[in-house]
Amino acid sequence: MIETTIRAVPGFSFLGKNIGIVDASLDFGCIVADQPCTAAGVFTRSSMPGAPVIVGREHIAGGRLQAIVVNSKNANVATGQRGIDNARAMCRWLGAACGIAPELVLPASTGVIGRALPMDRIEKAYPGLKDQLARDDAAAERFGRAIMTTDAFPKWANARVGNASITGIAKGAGMLEPNMATMLAWFVTDAEIPSDVLGPMIKRVADRSFNRMSVDTDTSTSDTCVILANGQAGAVDLQQFEDALSEIAIYLAKQMARDGEGATKLVELHVINASTQDQALKTARSVINSPLIKTCIYGADPNWGRFIMAIGKVFEYEVAREKLRITFGRGADRQTLDANVVEAGSMNLEALRKQLQGAEVFVELDLGAGSEAYHVWGCDLTERYVQLNAHYTT
Amino acid sequence: MIETTIRAVPGFSFLGKNIGIVDASLDFGCIVADQPCTAAGVFTRSSMPGAPVIVGREHIAGGRLQAIVVNSKNANVATGQRGIDNARAMCRWLGAACGIAPELVLPASTGVIGRALPMDRIEKAYPGLKDQLARDDAAAERFGRAIMTTDAFPKWANARVGNASITGIAKGAGMLEPNMATMLAWFVTDAEIPSDVLGPMIKRVADRSFNRMSVDTDTSTSDTCVILANGQAGAVDLQQFEDALSEIAIYLAKQMARDGEGATKLVELHVINASTQDQALKTARSVINSPLIKTCIYGADPNWGRFIMAIGKVFEYEVAREKLRITFGRGADRQTLDANVVEAGSMNLEALRKQLQGAEVFVELDLGAGSEAYHVWGCDLTERYVQLNAHYTT
Repeated sequence: MIETTIRAVPGFSFLGKNIGIVDASLDFGCIVADQPCTAAGVFTRSSMPGAPVIVGREHIAGGRLQAIVVNSKNANVATGQRGIDNARAMCRWLGAACGIAPELVLPASTGVIGRALPMDRIEKAYPGLKDQLARDDAAAERFGRAIMTTDAFPKWANARVGNASITGIAKGAGMLEPNMATMLAWFVTDAEIPSDVLGPMIKRVADRSFNRMSVDTDTSTSDTCVILANGQAGAVDLQQFEDALSEIAIYLAKQMARDGEGATKLVELHVINASTQDQALKTARSVINSPLIKTCIYGADPNWGRFIMAIGKVFEYEVAREKLRITFGRGADRQTLDANVVEAGSMNLEALRKQLQGAEVFVELDLGAGSEAYHVWGCDLTERYVQLNAHYTT
Repeated sequence: MIETTIRAVPGFSFLGKNIGIVDASLDFGCIVADQPCTAAGVFTRSSMPGAPVIVGREHIAGGRLQAIVVNSKNANVATGQRGIDNARAMCRWLGAACGIAPELVLPASTGVIGRALPMDRIEKAYPGLKDQLARDDAAAERFGRAIMTTDAFPKWANARVGNASITGIAKGAGMLEPNMATMLAWFVTDAEIPSDVLGPMIKRVADRSFNRMSVDTDTSTSDTCVILANGQAGAVDLQQFEDALSEIAIYLAKQMARDGEGATKLVELHVINASTQDQALKTARSVINSPLIKTCIYGADPNWGRFIMAIGKVFEYEVAREKLRITFGRGADRQTLDANVVEAGSMNLEALRKQLQGAEVFVELDLGAGSEAYHVWGCDLTERYVQLNAHYTT
């Protein structure tokens, strides 16, 4: 139902360009709507949110936005009152350049934490900006590339719902863990959606997608996920719309896990038949985040005992070992550690190794205790993650 | 006050030898006391404990033990009823060889999870074993080496308390995280300590030492920490004894963090002036376990913003950014991100890099919110951790 290409949406203009924040790559972008849109968003749960998150929460509070302005390479986090002033200036300048109230502009910044934004370079981005905006797919693509940091590839998708269309554009590769709002994800649509519907909807969608994905347990200070609906295409079936939006968001979340810093594999983990939703969720997170599991998946080492370990470290719940069942893969050649895991000397380790060698690894944990389920997406842990992050600022 | 050498304790005999479980390295050991000892222990909180933990908990329940038998290279975990039978056999055979009731023997196994113990080879360890036991330091050293798995070096220390002595011998390098009982740690003493004193004391000591140490957030299914007191040296000052025991345990915990798989640095983190003990503990764990902090410490990258991120992901607590203070190092050349972290452009990044280049990195987080404190030990995350764990069983 969704297309994994970039597609502009009627009534929105895009821009992505280089303003030399660090180097010559694209580092500045904006999305500008022809008219005020209904808008809703979710933000990082960090208690140390970045300045743009603080300002963005204010600006989106009324349920309306007309533009988004983003820079990469510098997150404008832990930069004090000056950082907040700088985030406001980014909105004010865009407003002045495009004839929009500054309060209808949402700012975002992503990159290194703890450095002041180079406002001299940023200010120079605005003169003539209005003429650089474009409504075509190529402009939307440049925007999608301008928000990347350690991402190896851009992340976008689109869908049609009735007469309307939705496009989602996101970035994220590291400092990613579920139980947050999300990373940077922007959705624009020409559907007409009241803001009191849009708010709860974007929360539900984030819970089904970005909040189920983990690269490294580290939650960003800059996570922002926002949707703008300009209404030009009129009303749509809201359930169909939410389904399409969810599908785009899930695709983008999986793309982030696939692009996890240094990752070579996407891991999809389903916990089923848990006694409670809390057990399902905690077990899923314990397993998807275990460095020993992430490394054995990387090496395709059929070391299934590590799954036993990670299930066991959810101390709050007893697990009936004789009911536990772990399945690797979902095709005909899937491998199941049968009911009594404990006598699993019979496991075909070579067949299990084959399952772990794929670019996508599917694992199902059946706790045999109830009927609650939860699933998450993650990735493997490689030397490259360490290398990328050992010298990030130097 | 403690000595970091291995020293046998009067009334205890030791053995460490190879029985060919996997290769020709030392893989089997025991400690045998001349007489029944008062004993106490703490075990893994895993809900999937290994068979030796299940049997060990039974045997120590009465507060008395006379011997410990350990193998490395195979953890005897997720091995079902057969595993439990095998753990009991290890006790029975040692009891028969040494004239001890099997219930006074505590078994332990460490290594790969999910494989049956090679009982044919293990059974052959026992005939003639009594004559192989020795009371000298060299035998204790062989025991300390026989319990190693991925450890790069053995871990031991001893102390004198009045007329008595205490020796601690431990192993641990990976699958290590605080909030557990501990890894394998054995303490023997000739002091006379009632078992009703010894039980609470070993819990307190583990809380001050092993439970404050993390290598990789993964909690082992085999963690066991046990003390045997044979009473031969008579009564001692209990506070002095607990102090010495704590000092040995803290030293061993730090040795484990220092020997974290692939680690190059020991990290000591103090959280001070938290509003509650829970905030201090959660903040300490969030920071010590953050892969982004562990990698930047490895690379000595002065990326202090990641500490802001990791403090921020303890969602339950608000942090007053203007009171937060982060100090790196404790010498005259320590570097402090002063009160208003947020305007910390003034941080001397080169001086901070120097602090991170040491083999021991000390960090203090002052939350400025109250008077509670907590400290933990951890290590950096390197490519070598990934390499060691990507192909552990193959």
